[in-house]
Amino acid sequence: MAKGKVYLVGAGPGDPGLFTLKGRDVLAQAEVVIYDYLANEELLEFAPPQAERIYVGKKGGDHTLSQEDINRLLVEKGREHLVVRLKGGDPFIFGRGGEEAEELVAARIPFEVVPGVTAAVAVPAYAGIPLSHRDFTASIGLVTGHERDGKEESNIAWDKLACGVGTLVLFMGVKNLAEICRKLIFHGRPAETPVAVIRWGTTPRQQTVAGTLESIADRVRQAGLKPPAIIVVGEVVGLRDTLNWFESRPLFGRSIIVTRAREQASDFKEILQRLGAHCIEFPTIGIEPPPSWEPLDAAIARLSSYHWIIFTSVNGVEFFLQRLFATGCDVRELKGLRLCAIGPKTAEVLERHGLRLDLIPEEYRAESILDGLSGEPVTGLRFLMPRALAARDILPETLRRRGGPAPQPAAPDSPGVG
Amino acid sequence: MAKGKVYLVGAGPGDPGLFTLKGRDVLAQAEVVIYDYLANEELLEFAPPQAERIYVGKKGGDHTLSQEDINRLLVEKGREHLVVRLKGGDPFIFGRGGEEAEELVAARIPFEVVPGVTAAVAVPAYAGIPLSHRDFTASIGLVTGHERDGKEESNIAWDKLACGVGTLVLFMGVKNLAEICRKLIFHGRPAETPVAVIRWGTTPRQQTVAGTLESIADRVRQAGLKPPAIIVVGEVVGLRDTLNWFESRPLFGRSIIVTRAREQASDFKEILQRLGAHCIEFPTIGIEPPPSWEPLDAAIARLSSYHWIIFTSVNGVEFFLQRLFATGCDVRELKGLRLCAIGPKTAEVLERHGLRLDLIPEEYRAESILDGLSGEPVTGLRFLMPRALAARDILPETLRRRGGPAPQPAAPDSPGVG
Repeated sequence: MAKGKVYLVGAGPGDPGLFTLKGRDVLAQAEVVIYDYLANEELLEFAPPQAERIYVGKKGGDHTLSQEDINRLLVEKGREHLVVRLKGGDPFIFGRGGEEAEELVAARIPFEVVPGVTAAVAVPAYAGIPLSHRDFTASIGLVTGHERDGKEESNIAWDKLACGVGTLVLFMGVKNLAEICRKLIFHGRPAETPVAVIRWGTTPRQQTVAGTLESIADRVRQAGLKPPAIIVVGEVVGLRDTLNWFESRPLFGRSIIVTRAREQASDFKEILQRLGAHCIEFPTIGIEPPPSWEPLDAAIARLSSYHWIIFTSVNGVEFFLQRLFATGCDVRELKGLRLCAIGPKTAEVLERHGLRLDLIPEEYRAESILDGLSGEPVTGLRFLMPRALAARDILPETLRRRGGPAPQPAAPDSPGVG
Repeated sequence: MAKGKVYLVGAGPGDPGLFTLKGRDVLAQAEVVIYDYLANEELLEFAPPQAERIYVGKKGGDHTLSQEDINRLLVEKGREHLVVRLKGGDPFIFGRGGEEAEELVAARIPFEVVPGVTAAVAVPAYAGIPLSHRDFTASIGLVTGHERDGKEESNIAWDKLACGVGTLVLFMGVKNLAEICRKLIFHGRPAETPVAVIRWGTTPRQQTVAGTLESIADRVRQAGLKPPAIIVVGEVVGLRDTLNWFESRPLFGRSIIVTRAREQASDFKEILQRLGAHCIEFPTIGIEPPPSWEPLDAAIARLSSYHWIIFTSVNGVEFFLQRLFATGCDVRELKGLRLCAIGPKTAEVLERHGLRLDLIPEEYRAESILDGLSGEPVTGLRFLMPRALAARDILPETLRRRGGPAPQPAAPDSPGVG
C-alpha cells in the first residue's frame, strides 16, 4: 500500500529539548516536512537528509503560503507520502491544526496528531511564572489577539474575560497591547495587576518585560520588544521575582560563536547552552573523506607487512573499519598487528568493536607512543597511521550560507590539515 | 561541588511518546525520582536502575504524602542529589509545581522547570477535539474543579466564565459534573452546548463520553466513567465526529497480552500499540546468562579447532563477543573460522562488529545450513554454535508480580529452552 499519511506535529515553544519523543520519531520517518516559521529549525535535523523540506511561512501577517495553499499542499503530498506537518507550539492551540485535519478527512487521507508543549504554558514557565497557583488562581484563560480576518476581536468577550479567569495568556497581542490593557481595566481588572511580555521564550534569546496593566504598554515600547511574544496577566506574574530560574543562569544573554567542525560542535554547544548561552554554530573546518582512498586501500592490501596500527581519532577508527569492510576484508585481518589508540575515546570505540589494545599512551603526543614501546627496538618496525579523514577549511561556505561576502570557493582537492 | 539540584519535570498526559526529549535526558541522569500517581510509570525506565524511586501518590483525594511532606522530601533530597520531580502533565498547570519551586528557592536549592505536554490540550486532541478553531472560538479556559481545601469553588467566577470563553476545559470535575453543568446553563451557556468527558486520555485505555450540558451528567453516570478525567465544553467538541483519529484505529479498545521475553517484547508491542491496542507485558520466559560459562570458555580456548561458528540469535552474538573479550581474546581470534548467521538481524549485528559472513542460510532451519554448504564434505568439520543465553521459564515470577497465586519457584539451574 503506497498510501500516505499526515502527522500534525507540535514543535514546542522554541527550546528543541521541549520537542516530544513521538514527534522526533515520526520526523525521523518523514518523506516530506511542511513547516512554519515558529518551529525551531534545529528540529529539522531529526528528519532524514533526503526528506523534502517545505517552508510555508506565517511570520506574523507575512504568510509565504495562504492557509488554503497549505491545506492543498498537505492533501497533495499526503496522498502518497509520509508527511510531517510541523507547527510551532501545539497544532491545536491557535495553530489551525483543526482546519488542516478537516481537509485531510475530506480528502480521505489518514492523519494523526502529535500534541506539543504549548508556548502558553512553557514560555511563562521559563520566565519564572507558573500559570496556576493555589494562593492566587484556579482558572487560566488562553486568548489569541489574532482572529479571523475582518472580525478583529469580535470573538473575544473582554467584558467577561477580564475578571472571569485568574491568569490570562495572550498570543499575538503585542501590537494591540495598549488597547487590550485598557479594555481589561475598563472591565474591572485592577490597573496594578502584574503583566509580563515574553519574546523568544524558552530560547537563549528570551527577553521579558514586566509591569502592570497600567505601565506595561509603555515599558514594552521603551524596550523595543516586537512580536511574536506571549503576554501573561495576573497575580502569578509576581512569582517571577522569586522563581526566575532561566534568565538567571550564568551565561544567559551571552552569544557565543562555536567554530568547531559541525560534527564535533554539539557536545560543547550543549554545555554552553545549559549555562544559558546563545550559541551560533559557525564551523570554520569540516570533516570529509580524503580526496582518494588509494593510499589507504594499498595499505590494507599489505596489512601483514605492518607491525603497529596507530589510531589518532574516533573518526579515524570508524572510517578505517568501514573501508576495511568495503574492500572485502574484515576486522579479523588485523590479527597479528599491534593496536595503539591516542586518547580514551578512540580506545573506547576500538574496544566497542571487539578489538583489544596493546597501547594507550598516557600523553597524546607522538613521543609518548615511543615511550610506550618501553625499550623495544623500533628499528625495522612498520607503523600504519590511518587518517581516513581530511579536514577542509570551510569558512567560505559558512560565510556564504550566512549571507556574508561571497569568497573564492575552496579548491576541491585541498590537501587538508589533519 | 556535591550540591544537588531539582528538576520539576512534566511527564505529559499519559502516552509516553508525549514525554519531552529534555525530560528524558534529565531523567537519565537522576539520582532520585519523586513521582506522582498520574505520571506514566513506563517513563521511570528512563531513569538509571540505581536511582532511588519515591512514589508520593496523589490519586484523587488519596495522597500517599501530603504536599507539605512532598516539599520537605524535595528539599531533603535536593540538597545533595540530582532530583527529578516527575509530575503528570505540566508541573505548572494545576500541578502545584509553583509551590514546590518556592520551597526550593527558600532552601537555596537550584531548580529548573521542564514543562510537559498538558493533558488540557493533548487529551482533547486524542479525542478528536481541537481546543481552538477559527470557525468557533479564539479563547480557551482551563479550570480545576479541585481547589484549596475549605474554599470549594470559591475561586472560580462561573458567572463570567460560563460565556467568557469559547472552549472550557475542566480538570478534576467529574465528581461535580452535574453541578458544574447546571451552573454553566444558569449563567447563560446554552443547554445544547456539546460536552465530552475523557478518561485515561492519550492511553490505549482512553474512554470518551459525549453529550450536551443537559445530557452529559446522566451519560457519564450510565457509562460508569470515574475520575480522573478531562471535561471539554464548547462547540469544538462537535468536531470530534469528523476528527476522531485515535479511537478509530483498528485495534483500539483491544487488550493484548504479550508473552515474549521482556528484552524482546518492545518492538512487537510498539507495532500493536501503534494500531491502537492496549498491551500488557506478561513475559513467560526470561533471558539470562547460562548457569556456567565453562563450556563456552573451553570452546574459546580451542577456537582454532573449529571450522564454522553458527550464530543463531542477536543475543548469542552479543554475549559471545563480550565473553570472548572478557576472557582476554578479541575478535581477531576468529580469523580462519567461517561464520554463519541465522536470520538477517543476527547477520546485521555481526557485520556491525566488522565481521564478514560466509553463509546466511535462506531458511532459518538447521537443514538449510547444510544446504548452504552446497556439496562441501561435512565429515570432519567442527561446528561451534554459541548459545550464550539460557531462556528460563519465568511465568511464576510474572504471576507473583501481578499478584497471582504464589507458585513454586523455578529451579535456579533449570536447563532452559533455547
